[in-house]
Amino acid sequence: MEKEVTIYDIAKRLNYSPATVSRALNDHPAIRSDTKDVITSMARQMGYRSNTFASNLRRQRTNTIGVIVPRLNSNFMSCALAGMEKVANEAGYNLIISQSLESARKEKANAKTMFDSRVDGLLVSVSYDTEDIEHFDDFINKGVPLLFFDRVIEHNQCPSIVIDNVKAGYEATTHLLEQGCTRLMHVTGNLKRNVYADRLKGYRMALQDRDIHYEKQLVLETDLSQEAGVEAARQLMAFPHRPDGLFVTNDLCAVTCMGQLKKAGLSIPADVAVVGFNNDPVSQVVEPNLTTIHYPGREMGEIAVKSLINHLNGLMDMQTTNTIILRSELIIRASSLKKAH
Amino acid sequence: MEKEVTIYDIAKRLNYSPATVSRALNDHPAIRSDTKDVITSMARQMGYRSNTFASNLRRQRTNTIGVIVPRLNSNFMSCALAGMEKVANEAGYNLIISQSLESARKEKANAKTMFDSRVDGLLVSVSYDTEDIEHFDDFINKGVPLLFFDRVIEHNQCPSIVIDNVKAGYEATTHLLEQGCTRLMHVTGNLKRNVYADRLKGYRMALQDRDIHYEKQLVLETDLSQEAGVEAARQLMAFPHRPDGLFVTNDLCAVTCMGQLKKAGLSIPADVAVVGFNNDPVSQVVEPNLTTIHYPGREMGEIAVKSLINHLNGLMDMQTTNTIILRSELIIRASSLKKAH
Repeated sequence: MEKEVTIYDIAKRLNYSPATVSRALNDHPAIRSDTKDVITSMARQMGYRSNTFASNLRRQRTNTIGVIVPRLNSNFMSCALAGMEKVANEAGYNLIISQSLESARKEKANAKTMFDSRVDGLLVSVSYDTEDIEHFDDFINKGVPLLFFDRVIEHNQCPSIVIDNVKAGYEATTHLLEQGCTRLMHVTGNLKRNVYADRLKGYRMALQDRDIHYEKQLVLETDLSQEAGVEAARQLMAFPHRPDGLFVTNDLCAVTCMGQLKKAGLSIPADVAVVGFNNDPVSQVVEPNLTTIHYPGREMGEIAVKSLINHLNGLMDMQTTNTIILRSELIIRASSLKKAH
Repeated sequence: MEKEVTIYDIAKRLNYSPATVSRALNDHPAIRSDTKDVITSMARQMGYRSNTFASNLRRQRTNTIGVIVPRLNSNFMSCALAGMEKVANEAGYNLIISQSLESARKEKANAKTMFDSRVDGLLVSVSYDTEDIEHFDDFINKGVPLLFFDRVIEHNQCPSIVIDNVKAGYEATTHLLEQGCTRLMHVTGNLKRNVYADRLKGYRMALQDRDIHYEKQLVLETDLSQEAGVEAARQLMAFPHRPDGLFVTNDLCAVTCMGQLKKAGLSIPADVAVVGFNNDPVSQVVEPNLTTIHYPGREMGEIAVKSLINHLNGLMDMQTTNTIILRSELIIRASSLKKAH
């Protein structure tokens, strides 16, 4: 690559002072607009890149928001990002996104890249194995607003946006019990993460409210992949007293599991009633259609960016907000309907 | 936000010269390692951000690769990004990703953000309405390598990675004809883009090879959304002489269309045989399972980043490569099998 073009190079070429070039490139009112045009056009021609560092000293904005997510392979995440893009776009911000691939080590590297890119704010959904948030200290110390969404970690300076996962887990479980299920298997993700731990809490509370004994062996902690769905089906069928209800905290994993159960000759919902999570498009493709929890990903993304931008514009101090909880909803379809309505 | 911390601030605080601080932060061999530790730790404590601009002058690397994609909502794209992350990770690079949301205007803004973030290289799959690539001129002029993947635009300095979309379209169409279909509907995306234009070429060539008249009205140019799948089913059923074969260049759109046809009482594949594209997980959830083209997204992502890094390391001059074509594969499943094997 060539040497970076500086404002000095542009000044020399055009026989202007560096100060004039700098002001012109920063749209300073003291510079005539035809001069600005000449300088901007030469800067472009020479491949000048605005020096984010220097301009940050003045306006402190890159108009870029960083987003760190575990993976980009879920419908929930693409909906959340679509919501973020919409609001960011309208406010003249651009998103840059990176994936932790469920690794705390990579999340740390992503945080450094985002910090060095001088994002104006950061939205994070933490990885499977993130233990603490020391790697975000640079942002906090610098006053760069940081907001967690979906998979969150408590921090007194960083608000969180979540759904009420306890309630969602409670509703899914109660629905299966109301349909006459007596023995419920629960397939979920890493219980270190709030989303899965809270859904399990809801599952346990629903059992307790109906005096059903909680059996640890009926809870499978997995990576919620399609492979995990296959394995869950295998384990379900291996129980001497086979579970008649199944609550999986991910739709694609749930439908893969259903596929295996059907292949083995079990009938859904008569033999096993199934509830998923997220309301992915796949839930309406599988037969029977999958009962699931509608997860407002798009709304979550929109509110996350709105909060951040309002904070940056001094319209709302994010730090006074602790947690924003969005409404989720149980959507009942054929996969769990043992009783006629 | 506070004022940026500079190496001068660190130097002042520690009573070192700015040159020593700068060298220590750049891991210069002339600086003792205990001095480096003191300086690095103070820099961290004070919230110093490495000045990418200045360090670029020296090492010209940010170890960051930019990726601009149309949307993050497809299985193909998440596979491609997973492949990119894998190779980038192994080579010590980080990806930053942004979405054009199918808009040339936003793609332009993304390009600017990536350029200002000083990415070492850029991978692009262009938006629906991108007409030219002037907005990438800054990269080309600056010698920052630029590579197109999947949705590409011809440029003599930028290589492309694609599958042979003509061949894939030809194979899908020929398969339907071999199964006894006589009238094929083709549902595809924006024909400005190589991927869809080439698949249509393949469709037409396959018809021609069997002396079947090409009817323009049987080709639907859509946005390949689920809504487009519903509309395609409506149009298919509205033909007086109903098509008995359907080739949709997107699996989720195809299965949504299948769902509508089944709801209307048509049998798949007996009444309408269906072939999709991409080999999404949903293709194995729908009943009957969907015949589709396996798209090597992961491999495409891996090769894209490998090419870029090899170029950056001087191991291979990317500019001598014009196009890399990856193998795709027709995967035959029940949705198109009218004849017993």
